[in-house]
Amino acid sequence: MANLGYAECRFHRPVVPGDTIRTSSEVIGLKQNSSGKTGVVWVRSTARDHHGEVLLEWARWVMVNKRDVDAPAPDTVVPELADAVAVDDLVVPAGLDFTGYDFAAAGEPHRWDDYEVGEKIDHVDGVTLTDAEHMMATRLWQNTAKVHFNTSARVDGRRLIYGGHVISMARALSFNGLANAQPIAAINAGSHTAPAFAGDTVYAWSEVLDKCETAAPGVGALRLRLVATSGRDTTMTLRASDGKYTPEVLLDLDYWAYCPR
Amino acid sequence: MANLGYAECRFHRPVVPGDTIRTSSEVIGLKQNSSGKTGVVWVRSTARDHHGEVLLEWARWVMVNKRDVDAPAPDTVVPELADAVAVDDLVVPAGLDFTGYDFAAAGEPHRWDDYEVGEKIDHVDGVTLTDAEHMMATRLWQNTAKVHFNTSARVDGRRLIYGGHVISMARALSFNGLANAQPIAAINAGSHTAPAFAGDTVYAWSEVLDKCETAAPGVGALRLRLVATSGRDTTMTLRASDGKYTPEVLLDLDYWAYCPR
Amino acid sequence: MANLGYAECRFHRPVVPGDTIRTSSEVIGLKQNSSGKTGVVWVRSTARDHHGEVLLEWARWVMVNKRDVDAPAPDTVVPELADAVAVDDLVVPAGLDFTGYDFAAAGEPHRWDDYEVGEKIDHVDGVTLTDAEHMMATRLWQNTAKVHFNTSARVDGRRLIYGGHVISMARALSFNGLANAQPIAAINAGSHTAPAFAGDTVYAWSEVLDKCETAAPGVGALRLRLVATSGRDTTMTLRASDGKYTPEVLLDLDYWAYCPR
Repeated sequence: MANLGYAECRFHRPVVPGDTIRTSSEVIGLKQNSSGKTGVVWVRSTARDHHGEVLLEWARWVMVNKRDVDAPAPDTVVPELADAVAVDDLVVPAGLDFTGYDFAAAGEPHRWDDYEVGEKIDHVDGVTLTDAEHMMATRLWQNTAKVHFNTSARVDGRRLIYGGHVISMARALSFNGLANAQPIAAINAGSHTAPAFAGDTVYAWSEVLDKCETAAPGVGALRLRLVATSGRDTTMTLRASDGKYTPEVLLDLDYWAYCPR
Repeated sequence: MANLGYAECRFHRPVVPGDTIRTSSEVIGLKQNSSGKTGVVWVRSTARDHHGEVLLEWARWVMVNKRDVDAPAPDTVVPELADAVAVDDLVVPAGLDFTGYDFAAAGEPHRWDDYEVGEKIDHVDGVTLTDAEHMMATRLWQNTAKVHFNTSARVDGRRLIYGGHVISMARALSFNGLANAQPIAAINAGSHTAPAFAGDTVYAWSEVLDKCETAAPGVGALRLRLVATSGRDTTMTLRASDGKYTPEVLLDLDYWAYCPR
Repeated sequence: MANLGYAECRFHRPVVPGDTIRTSSEVIGLKQNSSGKTGVVWVRSTARDHHGEVLLEWARWVMVNKRDVDAPAPDTVVPELADAVAVDDLVVPAGLDFTGYDFAAAGEPHRWDDYEVGEKIDHVDGVTLTDAEHMMATRLWQNTAKVHFNTSARVDGRRLIYGGHVISMARALSFNGLANAQPIAAINAGSHTAPAFAGDTVYAWSEVLDKCETAAPGVGALRLRLVATSGRDTTMTLRASDGKYTPEVLLDLDYWAYCPR
């Protein structure tokens, strides 16, 4: 029924054409909601390639319907999940070496040393969404949820845009200012805070939350908050005075990326 | 001017990337229409790969303009075409073996033995069509008929959606209920019974028309009617009381598919 | 700020999948505009493959903002550029041989000898543009100019269609009448004479400007004017009585192509 959150997502190595990916999930938590009709399920998922090597692992919690409303509530188990992947838990892909990084070819001179914790970056550009594009992107990921494809699924007749499309769009827009923050290392947390629809113009801004060195040659890590908004928000405020997300915020994503030093 | 029907379409083997396909057609029938301005032409077509091996063969009839209206009518030749490809005429691709079929990976447990002749399956999901998507799909097949691309081609300013797109969409929707009815063996008949346009929401239902065993290990064949509708028709009625197709029916396709037993 | 023109564009060899293309540009001319705020820059660009071999070279001039409005105007240098690539300067790709050209497979019988200088060809077909398609095509070329993607970039809320999409569409439409004028040899000049938007229906017509023999077996060259229009212009007039382009003209492109004799 709803995607509630992500945590402890770590990328072990980049995926390349020809990889076949298989994912398995283990239930690690359960809690019935007060209505008695729905509940929250926590799972930990692992994606492996065709050799069985881990590519990616993550935890996620979702709201689902209860199969039998009259069944007794299961014991509540809420897993402890880290607020963020610890620096020591980041997996640096084997062979990653940024000592010869070509900043001219990359198109931007900014390197790990240039970013300061607390700094905010307005990515400036915006893209207006269309139904044809978000549906095709969503099919690429084999997400067939009807709310993304069928105008009858919502009372307003609009097709809800898959959150993964908003993440991808925001990440692409962040190139303007974060061109060299390239391989994603981990996703610490993420919230889809408002729905997006065709006709919305997506902008993005980022905040540097943390930075650390790594053992790989020339490689630093940046912890970044990536915020997608509908319409440009040059104030780069995430929350209103009442503590809620401002209405234009679509996505609040917290991740680690590797960046040449 | 119009695509009137298909018959005796048999798939000899699956097509793979790198195959180059070439098709030749032989005229097997001719009949002038009573207007004297148009007529029906029957052709039998054969698609071969770059080694000359047959991939696919089919018969088809179309309405075309008469080149010289004043020319005498040709002798009428109406070919005898089978109502359906006979079970013994189905070509099982070399090496097809479903004895180790992985039903868990396929996502649905239903197997050949589970389907009954006369059973109808509501595929439930619907997809709302867009102009950008149907035009791109139509270009993939190198169909350049202007009615699909040019808003000036019809008086209502709408782009007619290529029938092949409706077939593909209905077949994809039928995964929900027929996930394991995978390789298409033959197309017995097909009618595009109403035009489709951007904004229409396509749904599909199927009827099991026949089933038979094959000599291949673990492989059964299902003869299926695949019906695409604009808007969902949970009554799964194909024809109204006057014997005509109900207005929401877009496609009535009769085919054979192989299914693990 | 604006793309003003192209000249002396020569294709050295066809590009194939797996080529990695790198382009470098040299400034060959400069002229400050009378406003003092903008100027014209002429560049000569060379695209090379990953072995360093030249694929393509061209000259181009663009209007740009002056970085420092108070700086003295640079010396004016206006390069001499050819009105058209001379026949002797065309580069015939190594191995190009049209002596065994298969006109039946190509779909049209017209050959180099059939075209006459001064002849105009109405390409007949039209395609109505959509926002989703032009944005995806523009991303393919990694053109991220916001005016193509963001409805806020223009006061009328429309997304301007990238000129490269109009060139590609017109070239594709010209297949109907010029199917065998295949490899592009050179672009002599080109003007984007009016903006295009989603909903416009693009048509094309061509004029044979020149023709010449080449040293390659069976290969002639045609110099063609390719004109894209919004709405069909069967009169195939490029300019109105006042010498300006007629309002429906979107593109006026002058190029050389090789054609079997």
